[in-house]
Amino acid sequence: MLGTGKVVIAQGGGPTPVVNASLFGVVREATRQLGHGTSIWGAQNGITGVLQERWIDLRNVKEQLWKQIAESPGAALGSCRKSLNPEEAVRAVSILRDNDVRYFFYIGGNDSMDTALKINQAALDLHHEMVCCGIPKTIDNDLPGTDHCPGFGSAARYMAQSTADLGADVRSLPTPVSILEVMGRDAGWLTAATLLARKNPGDAPHLIYVPEVPLTREKFLSDVQQVYDTHGWVVAAVAEGVKNKEGKRWGDRQDDRTADDFGHRLPGNVAATLANLVTSELGLRARGDKPGLLARSSAIMASPVDRLEAEEIGAFGFSRALKGNTGFMASIVRQQTKTYVVEYGSVPLENVANKVRLLPLGFVTDHRNDIRAEFRAYAEPLVGALVQHACLTDRGFNSANPATQGR
Amino acid sequence: MLGTGKVVIAQGGGPTPVVNASLFGVVREATRQLGHGTSIWGAQNGITGVLQERWIDLRNVKEQLWKQIAESPGAALGSCRKSLNPEEAVRAVSILRDNDVRYFFYIGGNDSMDTALKINQAALDLHHEMVCCGIPKTIDNDLPGTDHCPGFGSAARYMAQSTADLGADVRSLPTPVSILEVMGRDAGWLTAATLLARKNPGDAPHLIYVPEVPLTREKFLSDVQQVYDTHGWVVAAVAEGVKNKEGKRWGDRQDDRTADDFGHRLPGNVAATLANLVTSELGLRARGDKPGLLARSSAIMASPVDRLEAEEIGAFGFSRALKGNTGFMASIVRQQTKTYVVEYGSVPLENVANKVRLLPLGFVTDHRNDIRAEFRAYAEPLVGALVQHACLTDRGFNSANPATQGR
Repeated sequence: MLGTGKVVIAQGGGPTPVVNASLFGVVREATRQLGHGTSIWGAQNGITGVLQERWIDLRNVKEQLWKQIAESPGAALGSCRKSLNPEEAVRAVSILRDNDVRYFFYIGGNDSMDTALKINQAALDLHHEMVCCGIPKTIDNDLPGTDHCPGFGSAARYMAQSTADLGADVRSLPTPVSILEVMGRDAGWLTAATLLARKNPGDAPHLIYVPEVPLTREKFLSDVQQVYDTHGWVVAAVAEGVKNKEGKRWGDRQDDRTADDFGHRLPGNVAATLANLVTSELGLRARGDKPGLLARSSAIMASPVDRLEAEEIGAFGFSRALKGNTGFMASIVRQQTKTYVVEYGSVPLENVANKVRLLPLGFVTDHRNDIRAEFRAYAEPLVGALVQHACLTDRGFNSANPATQGR
Repeated sequence: MLGTGKVVIAQGGGPTPVVNASLFGVVREATRQLGHGTSIWGAQNGITGVLQERWIDLRNVKEQLWKQIAESPGAALGSCRKSLNPEEAVRAVSILRDNDVRYFFYIGGNDSMDTALKINQAALDLHHEMVCCGIPKTIDNDLPGTDHCPGFGSAARYMAQSTADLGADVRSLPTPVSILEVMGRDAGWLTAATLLARKNPGDAPHLIYVPEVPLTREKFLSDVQQVYDTHGWVVAAVAEGVKNKEGKRWGDRQDDRTADDFGHRLPGNVAATLANLVTSELGLRARGDKPGLLARSSAIMASPVDRLEAEEIGAFGFSRALKGNTGFMASIVRQQTKTYVVEYGSVPLENVANKVRLLPLGFVTDHRNDIRAEFRAYAEPLVGALVQHACLTDRGFNSANPATQGR
């Protein structure tokens, strides 16, 4: 334990519906273990707030407000997409040292773990004794070293339920082709989770395309035509980052001004692009929808398991940090039990930073347009139950007047 | 009362999250008033199912299933976008007459009321004594003769809550410009409802654009720049049908193969178009999101008031029909009381069919980029409470270390 120094927490990258549960988890555990007198600061807008010394005194936050904060989407401390250069890392650590900060928590995804790693390295270089801990957070579920990432289960629940809802709509009033765009530049985990909407054969989604598998124009059009010929309606879930054979994104935006500090350009509109293609090539009425950021900001659709784990992993991260460990990211370790049980662990930041864990191709079907049933066992415990829909046209009630059928 | 003839119910047009509550309302009341032996049929896929004699015997539906059906999105009987020609109207009524149908209910919006009117007229022409009743249903809220339309409150709740969610996200990690596309080809009611997300000045949405007010490129860019200069982030809610000065839709799709039987083309992607414009002209990172059909298919976000009214208006429609009235649409009449109270009434179908009730321009601010506070009194009772979000960057906590501020 590093004496009475301050605790600083910051949030980086895209928010999730449970990112503030992790914030609360760290604060809760720090208060419990160090006492109410402990200085716990938030840095506003991630590492930017450290560099600019924009602090928030988290001791002043009342318990009632914490409850609301923990359940609010958006990063309650503000977030950033700042890529730290070496000079900035040194400056940030100097500021943290001058403020006697001994525990530094960075809640974020791949890019944020890069920041956490740089801070940790700079602290070692400057001989500032400070524990630096990453708390995982990403709806993309693409951090290595953890069974899954807090935030994923909630966004997956939003997308899976939305797919089920959309399916109920489109089935009843065939558009007949509906393409649902799902966030995910490189990793297809979230798009794969739309599979959970399918309870019976023929349910939406009929087609699932992830960025890990190239999608040619011919393959796409032939898949859509085939599903349409079979069912008369089509719901396809498509990752925003799905690429053609040449590795070019279907929906990429050419404008570099949409790029963030890490060079990631905003994706284009793959659903709209593919819907236009379906109409022009197959002559079918097709529409694309794109809930986009709503998947990561709907607190109402948050998965209860995800929310609980997000808070617990924050608390665990603090406990582990208090033992003096540094340079690690807290992780979730799924137990080999019949029912779903997790424990928490840790992985070195250098094993995580800037690395992307893609969806294993083993989860993709041979036809490369769907996700295997095995994925359910992985994802269902994280997502929780969905609301099931019913209709009357599939239940054999349509025999009211058999005598006149087909007349 | 027209003896022991059959009751037929059909659903037309785009579904809503509560369209099946209205179906259940008719069935519930018919069963209550005529007894369990009454023949109640559903026609599959609206008027198409009448023409093709695809019936569903609704007496066979168990109570437990009704509960699930009433809360499911999508038209449980299937829907259609069929525009009836005079010969088809005569054929449909002949079929209804041959099946001794004495009560015909059509649950739908503007186009469906056109169908109901044609059926009613054909029945009169053929001297088939049959009550023809329209039950209003549209998320667009654009049917005349009723204070509001079942389905609107629920879709409005989805859009308003989504705007609040999006606001929490974008505020914490400025993109900095986020454009949210809202369904509504001609009427701005649903887009206007995003206003309910704004609890405090500066909250999302900062800008609201409805189809009733032309939007020039210059005006839009200047509005966005101004909000950005003031707040540092922008959330704009834009109706899919918003038009430029020449009356051309910003997001129109040129392909006529996206048109339905009524000649309505699928709208294009106004949010994507405007986001690209913001990036190219203002140099700001901008993204467009478009939940599209999800707004009308999320049963989880349904407004409790809307759900109740949807069922009640179905039941009321049946009661009124049983009295022998025909050629009417059931309507909602808001009472001039301090708290929100409604009664149900009726309007002649010819006053409703093919007519569109636009958002009154009096609800639009002088700057033509926002909705007046008066709209809240109209919409809030229909939408119900939203989940409020909190963050830590706006509460004066940022004084942890005033001595070093700005260093």
